This record gives sequence, structure tokens and C-alpha cells, in this order.
Amino acid sequence: MKFLNTRSDNFQSELKALLAFETAQDPKIDQIAADICADVQKRGDAALIEYTNKFDGTSAQTIADLTLTQDDLKTAFARIPAEVRTALQTAAKRVASYHQHQKMESWSYTDEDGTLLGQHITPLDRVGIYVPGGKAAYPSSVIMNAMPAHVAGVKEIIMVVPTPKGERNDIVLAAAYVAGVTKVFTVGGAQAVAALAYGTESVPQVDKITGPGNAFVAAAKRRVFGVVGIDMVAGPSEILVIADGGTPAEWVAMDLFSQAEHDEIAQAILIGTSQDYLDEVNTAIDKLMADMPRRAIIEASLSNRGAMILAKDLDEACDIANYIAPEHLELSVENAETWAKKIRHAGAVFMGKYTSESLGDYCAGPNHVLPTSRTARFSSPLGTYDFQKRSSLIQVSEAGAQKLGKIASVLAHGESLTAHARAAEFRLKD
Amino acid sequence: MKFLNTRSDNFQSELKALLAFETAQDPKIDQIAADICADVQKRGDAALIEYTNKFDGTSAQTIADLTLTQDDLKTAFARIPAEVRTALQTAAKRVASYHQHQKMESWSYTDEDGTLLGQHITPLDRVGIYVPGGKAAYPSSVIMNAMPAHVAGVKEIIMVVPTPKGERNDIVLAAAYVAGVTKVFTVGGAQAVAALAYGTESVPQVDKITGPGNAFVAAAKRRVFGVVGIDMVAGPSEILVIADGGTPAEWVAMDLFSQAEHDEIAQAILIGTSQDYLDEVNTAIDKLMADMPRRAIIEASLSNRGAMILAKDLDEACDIANYIAPEHLELSVENAETWAKKIRHAGAVFMGKYTSESLGDYCAGPNHVLPTSRTARFSSPLGTYDFQKRSSLIQVSEAGAQKLGKIASVLAHGESLTAHARAAEFRLKD
Repeated sequence: MKFLNTRSDNFQSELKALLAFETAQDPKIDQIAADICADVQKRGDAALIEYTNKFDGTSAQTIADLTLTQDDLKTAFARIPAEVRTALQTAAKRVASYHQHQKMESWSYTDEDGTLLGQHITPLDRVGIYVPGGKAAYPSSVIMNAMPAHVAGVKEIIMVVPTPKGERNDIVLAAAYVAGVTKVFTVGGAQAVAALAYGTESVPQVDKITGPGNAFVAAAKRRVFGVVGIDMVAGPSEILVIADGGTPAEWVAMDLFSQAEHDEIAQAILIGTSQDYLDEVNTAIDKLMADMPRRAIIEASLSNRGAMILAKDLDEACDIANYIAPEHLELSVENAETWAKKIRHAGAVFMGKYTSESLGDYCAGPNHVLPTSRTARFSSPLGTYDFQKRSSLIQVSEAGAQKLGKIASVLAHGESLTAHARAAEFRLKD
Repeated sequence: MKFLNTRSDNFQSELKALLAFETAQDPKIDQIAADICADVQKRGDAALIEYTNKFDGTSAQTIADLTLTQDDLKTAFARIPAEVRTALQTAAKRVASYHQHQKMESWSYTDEDGTLLGQHITPLDRVGIYVPGGKAAYPSSVIMNAMPAHVAGVKEIIMVVPTPKGERNDIVLAAAYVAGVTKVFTVGGAQAVAALAYGTESVPQVDKITGPGNAFVAAAKRRVFGVVGIDMVAGPSEILVIADGGTPAEWVAMDLFSQAEHDEIAQAILIGTSQDYLDEVNTAIDKLMADMPRRAIIEASLSNRGAMILAKDLDEACDIANYIAPEHLELSVENAETWAKKIRHAGAVFMGKYTSESLGDYCAGPNHVLPTSRTARFSSPLGTYDFQKRSSLIQVSEAGAQKLGKIASVLAHGESLTAHARAAEFRLKD
């Protein structure tokens, strides 16, 4: 891990170097993804089956071989251990309950001339959820992507999940059952994204695609953006812990591990206000490391991108947090709710020593799909609002048309848009 | 104009062909924009000045020559005709008032275990607004982009507007004054986008860039997306009018013109339920055309992409509208508010015969930056919410950590994420 001190003259440049991360887009991957997208758009099911057999080592003859029904999901749900069933259901219920609070409602008002103005809220008709298969299969991501769509009122949720060599993950399918997924296709990669974006004979065209995937999936999502909506293209996961020394050092060390274990390029940073406490956490890291199944990944992540920062005080620590705009921010401090008021930019804020980031990942209620790589400066967690959209409503009264028509006419002539002006003037009585 | 009839066997394919529009990205333009962005990122002000002098025919020596202050804006405001001043102020006031209704507020709740869950709303710190210069200078766009940012609580609004050959548009600068723009740089193109995205010695780095521009601007915006937020990349403008015959044919004809006059590739479509009425509108089009200053553009647009559709009834017309998901939808019908309930996908809905689309463009209150090319299926008008973002808040109580910790532990082990599980388990008392 790197050690930074805010009292150092080079602190700002060291911090900048620590956060620097190039997400270069590989033109080769872009080209392959583009070719696959174009082929699936053109040849539909046939292309989807071919690419799936080729990349996933399957031997599907028809789309039926790559389709799971509600019954299949239910069977998977019945097959998993009871405690996992209960955990999935409790998590889904808590996530639904939180996301209910995010639901937008239509509104309108009438001005003094009787002109009605408003905003009509509607859910998307049909969405697609991409779920990675193979090694990194995350049932919790199924819940985090599907539940907000469900709460928003989306009628059809189509899930795609690759099953390399035909291997299905029962917990992922059980999560789909719990989260109210309509239909599952066992396809993945750029071909799955293209099928959802353009539709095939069997895969219905969706209005938006969410969910994480590999570089080909990300390239395909960027490619089809505009034809359908997409969620953010995520960077490596990050955590920033601000600790005042009141949280057991081992807890904080494990919280840093829980981000680092995702990926060699994940970033875990701790800001403390005392060197002694930072040393304590460092000792805890050494002690706990030996026992971690993902030790190699954690060590690589901490040594590549991890850091401890000694700050003068918590005020300064909050300033640094606002600059970093972290995906996950733990305020492991007394009176965390007061300090939280100073935070302007963060995906999610975990307050107090009992709030480990991992509780938020699974079951606290808020979404675990969060803005990474400083994008919390301008973007938000995945939410119910991502599956709803707004239409402006305008109903101008005859009286309103007299007043507004004159203003519109002046401004339209100012822009040399005569038809705009005339359309307004036609509605004037004199 | 094309004439379609829903009773025809080929209607669906004819409609699809009518709407088809390829927004191919030109790799040459992409490359030029990428090179300019990289150069401005590297060389800052020097590069910005060079490109501006080269592309805009200016002879700036320093950034000061390309900077406008509040005083410059105020002077421009004082110089324009009084009726334009009043029109801008009234429009800005109405737009602000509507956008106040969109402002999101923070919320939180506490569950039965004392765990607090919520959502903290904050404005973006600093945004950039791109305003086209030269021929198509639209003061109304300044108001529509800046006012929502202002209402959201954004502290700094940086505007860029190219001034080809040094020519400034007083109404555009006056609109910036009225809309509370902080600072203006008279630069444009990919170089302006890059300066806002990366910052230079003089241009402050922003968190989001909104506003329309040419192909280079669009390519640069796509390029810097992720470093900063961007609004949508807009396609050609569209209007769909559904008319039951109660609106004077000339009004509807002029409403179609007001979209067509934007661009040869703009799209104006009328759906009627009687052939007689469609014929009447067609006659009005012929009659009114002669007198339009932008006649050539209007004729090209109507002949390239315009259409009249004869539908069986208003129910069917609404179904077609939902398929088209138009940017602008005029329901020029009796009881428009009832029919509006059937509309699921549209950027803005203009109800009743007095609500010409042009009133919405300038001063009704809602935003005129709207989703085009069927993207209203999944996206919304530009709004206050685009300049605010959400952070999730989680403060788990000791009691909550016991309950949530067990669930998180089960699910984390199910995903083989041991550190996630341990971090939760550490907070368990037994």
C-alpha cells in the first residue's frame, strides 16, 4: 500500500496519480463487438445460436435450447439451500422497500390563465438485464438490477446469462425467480446485447439494457446506445474509508479487503487522522491476509492501487472524499450523520462502525450498482428512476395562448424561425 | 409528403421505413475530434487559442480575448430591443417556475431496527453549456439549458459559444445574462468541449456538458463522456400531430412547418381520422408554403421525411404514437387530456388546439431539449434532475447489523466473496 500525508508538499499530485486510471477502449474489441452486433441484427436467432455455441462451448440447435421458463427458475429456487432461499427473499424485500421510496409520480399544475403544465411518469415497457456467467456469477446483481425495474412497473424483464459449457448457476436463477424476471435466455457476450437491442425472431427487443459484463459486453452496450438505453459503463470498484479510530482496526481492514477482493485493479483507500491508528490497521491487514481465499487478488489490488492517507482532521478528510467522489464511502466515525452533511460527491455513504460496505452490497436496501471513477460528481446509483421516464405535459388555454403567443412570436422572429412565430400568431385573436 | 393508410396491408413496414434513420458516426470526424481533444488536454489554453483562430477566423492572442464577463453580458442585454428583453425575462421566469417542480429533495427513513436508509440529493458543482454560434444561434436554448442548472443549485455555469469571425449574437449573450450564466468563453467545436471536460489554465473543468452542436461537437462529447457527464446526443427534430378535425387546417399546417423549418432531415407527421381533413391540411400546406422564408428547407423536409397517415380512429392513432415515441406530440383533439392518458412514450405532449408546439419551444415552461429518434421509449426531457445527483445513505444500527449481517454472510459465501462475508460477520455479537 502507498502512504500519503496531506502535510506533504506533493500531496495533491500524489493523490492525482493514485486515482489515475486509463479506461482505454481497445479498438480490436470494439470492432469484434461491432461485427457481432451487425450480424445478430441481420441474421437474428441463427447468428445468436452460432455465436453462443462458439463462445460458450454449447451445442444448442434452436433458441428453445437457450431459453429458460418461469418453471425452470422455480425449480432452481426449490433446489438451493433453505437459508439461501430465505436470504434472497429477505434481500429482495428490503431492496424493493427502499426502491419504492424512489418511485416518481406524475404531477401537474394550472397557472392563472388556466394553462395546465405537468410531467407524466411512465415505466419502460420492457428491459433487458445482462448477468455475467461463469466464475463471477453474482445473484445479488440480479436482485439489484431487476427489483428497481419491477418496482418501476416494467411489465417484462428479460434476463440474459451465459452458461459456459452449459453450466447453470442455481442461485442466479433462483434470484431471477425471486426478483420477478419474466424470461431468461442463456446467452451472453456482444451477441446477447445485440439480441436484446435489435430483437430477433425469439428474443424480444427491449428498451433499455442494464447490468455489468466483460469488455465485449461493454463495447456492445456502447455500440447499441441510442437504439436502446443503457446504464453506466462501470469502472473498477472502489472504497474510501474515513476512520476516526473508534472502529476496531480489523473491521476496517476487512472492509478494505472486501473491495480489494473483487479485482486486481479495484481500489481501497483509508483516510485516518492518527498515524497510530493507520499503523494498527496495517498490522491487522498483515494478520488477516494469510487466511483470505482470494489473498493473491487482495494483495495485488492493495499494492497496485491501495493507499493510506494521514489527514489533519475529519474536515480535511471530507474535502478529500469530495475530490475523490468515491463509489463507496464509509464514514467509520462518531456522529457520522453530521459528517455526512459535508459529503457532496459519493455513490453511497455508509455511516457508523456497524455499517460495513458489504451489508449494502447485499441487503440493506439501496442499490449496489453505483457510479465509479469519480463519476459520482455527476451521476447516481442505479434506481427505480432509471426504469421510469418523464413526458412534459402542456395544455395552453385560449387566454394563455394570447399571452404566450406574443412572447413566442418575439423570440421566434429573433431566431429567424418564421413558421414557429406564425404558428403562435395563428392562435392570437387579434 | 408520403400518404399512409393504416388499413393497408403494408402499413407496418411503410411506417418502419418512414421512421428509419441512420445516425452513422463518421470515423474521420471521430478521429479529428479525438485528436483535438487530446491536444487541448495536453497543451491547454495554447491549443484552445490556436484551434479557435484556425476554425473561427479570429485572431485571439490570449484567453482574455476569448472571455466574456458578467459586464459584457449585461451590456448585450441593455443593447437589444426592449420587447426582446421582456420576452427573454418572461420566458426564463416561466421555465424556472416549471423546473422548480422537478427539483428533487433528500429523504430518509428508519426501519424497525433503528437502521437509517435514505437518499441525499446534491447539485453538480459546475456545468458547461455548449451554445452553437453562427447561423443557427438560438437564445432559447441558452435559457433551456441554463435555467434547470440554476434551479438545481449549480454554483457555476460556464457557457461556450463560438463567434465565427468575431461576430457576437447579442440576444444569445442577453439570454445568458437572464439565465444566470457565470462566465462565457467565445470558443466552440471539439476544442471547446475538450477545454470544459479537462480544464485548461483558464477554463475551469466542469462536471457535465449539455447543449447541441455540430458533428464535431457531438463526437467530442461522446469522447469525453465518463470524464464528465453529457446530455443526450440529439437526432433530427420531429413532430407528430394527431388531429380529430376540430383544429383549423392552417394551424396544423403551420405546426408541421415549424418542425420542418429546422432542418431538411427534420420529420413532421400528421395522423388524421378523416381523408377530407388530411386533404384540407394538404391544401393549407400548398397555400401557406409560398410565403415561408425557409420554404426550401420546409419542402425538402416534408418531401424527404414528412407523412400523413389516415387512421381508423383516435385509439389507433395513439397506438401509432406510442410506437413512434415522438419528440413532440400534438394532441390537437377534443378532450385531449383523456387521450393523453393513452400516451406512454413521447418527449412532450401538447394538448388541445391552442397548444402549438412553438409555445413550448419558447415560453410555456417545460424544456425544449427532448428525446428524439424513438428514445422517448427510455429517456426524458432535459430537466432540473439532470443537474442533481443522488447518494445512497445507510446507517446500520447495532441491532440491524445482527440481522443484516447473517443475510449478507449467506449471500457473500454463495458468491465466494469471503472478505465480504467476514466484514459482516465481524459486526455480529456472537
